[in-house]
Amino acid sequence: MLYIVGLGPGDKSVMTQDALDAIEKCPIIVGYATYMRLVKDMLDGKEMVSTGMRGEMERCEKAIELAAQGKDVALISSGDAGIYGMAGLVFEILANKDQHLDVKVIPGVTASIAASAALGSPLMNDFCHISLSDLMTPWDVITERVDAAAKADFVICLYNPRSKGRPNNLREALDIMLKYKSPDTIVGYGKDVARLKEIEKITTIRDLDEEDINMTTIVIVGNKNTFVHDGRMVTPRGYSL
Amino acid sequence: MLYIVGLGPGDKSVMTQDALDAIEKCPIIVGYATYMRLVKDMLDGKEMVSTGMRGEMERCEKAIELAAQGKDVALISSGDAGIYGMAGLVFEILANKDQHLDVKVIPGVTASIAASAALGSPLMNDFCHISLSDLMTPWDVITERVDAAAKADFVICLYNPRSKGRPNNLREALDIMLKYKSPDTIVGYGKDVARLKEIEKITTIRDLDEEDINMTTIVIVGNKNTFVHDGRMVTPRGYSL
Repeated sequence: MLYIVGLGPGDKSVMTQDALDAIEKCPIIVGYATYMRLVKDMLDGKEMVSTGMRGEMERCEKAIELAAQGKDVALISSGDAGIYGMAGLVFEILANKDQHLDVKVIPGVTASIAASAALGSPLMNDFCHISLSDLMTPWDVITERVDAAAKADFVICLYNPRSKGRPNNLREALDIMLKYKSPDTIVGYGKDVARLKEIEKITTIRDLDEEDINMTTIVIVGNKNTFVHDGRMVTPRGYSL
Repeated sequence: MLYIVGLGPGDKSVMTQDALDAIEKCPIIVGYATYMRLVKDMLDGKEMVSTGMRGEMERCEKAIELAAQGKDVALISSGDAGIYGMAGLVFEILANKDQHLDVKVIPGVTASIAASAALGSPLMNDFCHISLSDLMTPWDVITERVDAAAKADFVICLYNPRSKGRPNNLREALDIMLKYKSPDTIVGYGKDVARLKEIEKITTIRDLDEEDINMTTIVIVGNKNTFVHDGRMVTPRGYSL
């Protein structure tokens, strides 16, 4: 059996019991080295298959190969494995080979939910997840989505907002949003939420310091009703209080 | 301290350690009776404040009142408390009263993530959450969001898709999507994922049986690349395999 395990934002206290159980019971753990470290006290005596950051496909192939031999394998992914994580890659590979394999996806707390809890309650009304990484989705598809989401006043969670290889994607996305959203729109972000740091900040589109944003930051842009009270970012559900 | 605790989809094995710890340590638990039952073995000796389904505001007011007296209170919410849950209501009430209170939001696995893991990996590309409940958001705002999301080819997660009081909201939303999405677009849903049943089904917009959908069903409508393989609903990340 292949278990695809979402580790959540990084701290074991935010993992589910199912995720801990899967890691506990599998003799083989496949994952990116940084994520292995998050659960290193659970790895004694296990076979570990680790690759670097760009080795996603390699990790999935290896995990599939070992599980197909009848072994119990845990493939670990940060956040939730089904949101820009490893679950989809495994199923794509299996589909391409038309291969059957017993797979169980163990859900986890994705980065936007972890950041939201740290910031207040920015996701209390309709929201979108958009990845600004154009490695795998064409940039014009991404910008069309940013435009549509901003126009319809969604709260917008940006994954992979900015990196050395794409320093201007966030700026371009914010500029598109400014066609519809006020520069005073509240923006919150969680820095390195996947890596135990959890430094969160609340600002506006106008005052956002892009230099403070990197690939592992989750940026949450509010809707027109999002406000700040007592240091918290709050999007109203719409109840009339 | 007020802890606002996301219970996840219903089974304790999908709760985080932080959520279990908060319930364990708080002498007072406030929540909807149905959710109390999910953790009933943890409630011995605790003071329980329970109200019926429409008592959200009452529960939040009560939880705030008790926590403001210096007591440790856990306000429980299904899924993640920040996604159409109790966290936003608490912060709205505090803002309306301009009241300070120490609050910690404990994130949980929201219903879309639980349903996604059970279905395969439908959320591997950009997606939206839209609630079809027009009790708190005007229907024309909701339909505008459905239109924008479908046009930009988002995967769309529908919360509160259909109830006795609003039997046609799902049909109307799907009809709007059909302006842009093919009737063969894959649809997956998890039935009563918040209540331990986890009966999931994969179909298409054309073949969806609306009678099978109720208020606690999460409906996930794929994008144009979403496919089914070996009984799983898969949205490709976009990697070229």
